[in-house]
Amino acid sequence: MTQAILFDVFGTCVDWRSGIVRAVAREFPLLDAERIADEWRARYDPSMAPIRDGTRGYAPLDQLHRENLRAVLSRHGAECNDLDHLASAWERLDPWPDTLAGLRAMRCHHLIAPCSNASIALMIRLSRHAGLEWDCILGAEIARSYKPDPSVYEASCAALGFAPNEVTFVAAHNGDLEAARRCGMRTAYLCRPAEHGPAQTSDLAPTGPWDHVADDMRSLAAMLRPDG
Amino acid sequence: MTQAILFDVFGTCVDWRSGIVRAVAREFPLLDAERIADEWRARYDPSMAPIRDGTRGYAPLDQLHRENLRAVLSRHGAECNDLDHLASAWERLDPWPDTLAGLRAMRCHHLIAPCSNASIALMIRLSRHAGLEWDCILGAEIARSYKPDPSVYEASCAALGFAPNEVTFVAAHNGDLEAARRCGMRTAYLCRPAEHGPAQTSDLAPTGPWDHVADDMRSLAAMLRPDG
Repeated sequence: MTQAILFDVFGTCVDWRSGIVRAVAREFPLLDAERIADEWRARYDPSMAPIRDGTRGYAPLDQLHRENLRAVLSRHGAECNDLDHLASAWERLDPWPDTLAGLRAMRCHHLIAPCSNASIALMIRLSRHAGLEWDCILGAEIARSYKPDPSVYEASCAALGFAPNEVTFVAAHNGDLEAARRCGMRTAYLCRPAEHGPAQTSDLAPTGPWDHVADDMRSLAAMLRPDG
Repeated sequence: MTQAILFDVFGTCVDWRSGIVRAVAREFPLLDAERIADEWRARYDPSMAPIRDGTRGYAPLDQLHRENLRAVLSRHGAECNDLDHLASAWERLDPWPDTLAGLRAMRCHHLIAPCSNASIALMIRLSRHAGLEWDCILGAEIARSYKPDPSVYEASCAALGFAPNEVTFVAAHNGDLEAARRCGMRTAYLCRPAEHGPAQTSDLAPTGPWDHVADDMRSLAAMLRPDG
């Protein structure tokens, strides 16, 4: 039986793209903010790869966000008055409309925590901004690696004091769920068809043998109720 | 200026002795529960010493509590039906009467987190039981050592993204405060004269140059208010 629920956060709990586009547009009213946001996000995964494969020591996501933003702006010949502030826009994203009610309902019956690639510092500030209330902050930093490296899921379950098969992992991304499943966790796919904006082509439907599939956090909470 | 507040928990936020005495008395109605509780607690610090000095790898406090309880019961010739359950009594302690209101007030203006020797798993469960609401769980486990080793305070400040002098550490124990002060943290002594029961002789008054001294969490919250 599921004793705890871990969550991917960017895209699954919060709408990163709208928030990042808004922050970029505020700083650069004359540039294509959507394009810059997408290019910034596109560097996210490649920038973690050397840390996953051990060719670079652990650096928190805040730092990778700064480096990636600097590279994108430089390509556009844009200069930022306060790069650190814009880079920290990931701390000021809004939750999807169903997130807060869903998390609150799940927390009545389970321990809940993020298992994200965000650092603890970033996740604390984002959680404050978005109103996400967790039992603790788990994820990349306690494992000093990045998802989908198995150590991140394994360290997060271990920190809760549970075996992986006692923990359900919730994500809007099939790849993330596949990595969690391989570690022995239970899995729940949450459909977020607008995470990447109106032209999204990936993760529009579940592609693996997930234990649960839901359209929003409230219905997922109902599925995961111990008496459900 | 203080951006975040870290807390010692056992003795500072929760009344461990009453809870442990109650749990021991329930299991062993014919034994001297206060004596067993005090002997159990007396093994706490010595059992962490080999982990601090590196002669033993990190083992979570839950495990040390189990080992120490087994040793104490064996000295008394007592056998426990469910040692794991009694050992987990540290997850079911009550807060001091002023704790919840004080933490809630401090959380309005600051990030707050425990910086305790408890494992994350133990602290999550204790926080649920006692109603302690944190921004995240820091302390021994993220440093894989035990207070007063400086790495525990340093890793906790770093995880928040703050320099030590931007963080205030709150404890009822002068030794704990001294270690935090040496790391560059600000310090607040909270008087808990009944932590060790009516015969307490230690930590009855502040003995160092602490930045704040308070009798309860509510008055400490007033002192730490940014406009205070």
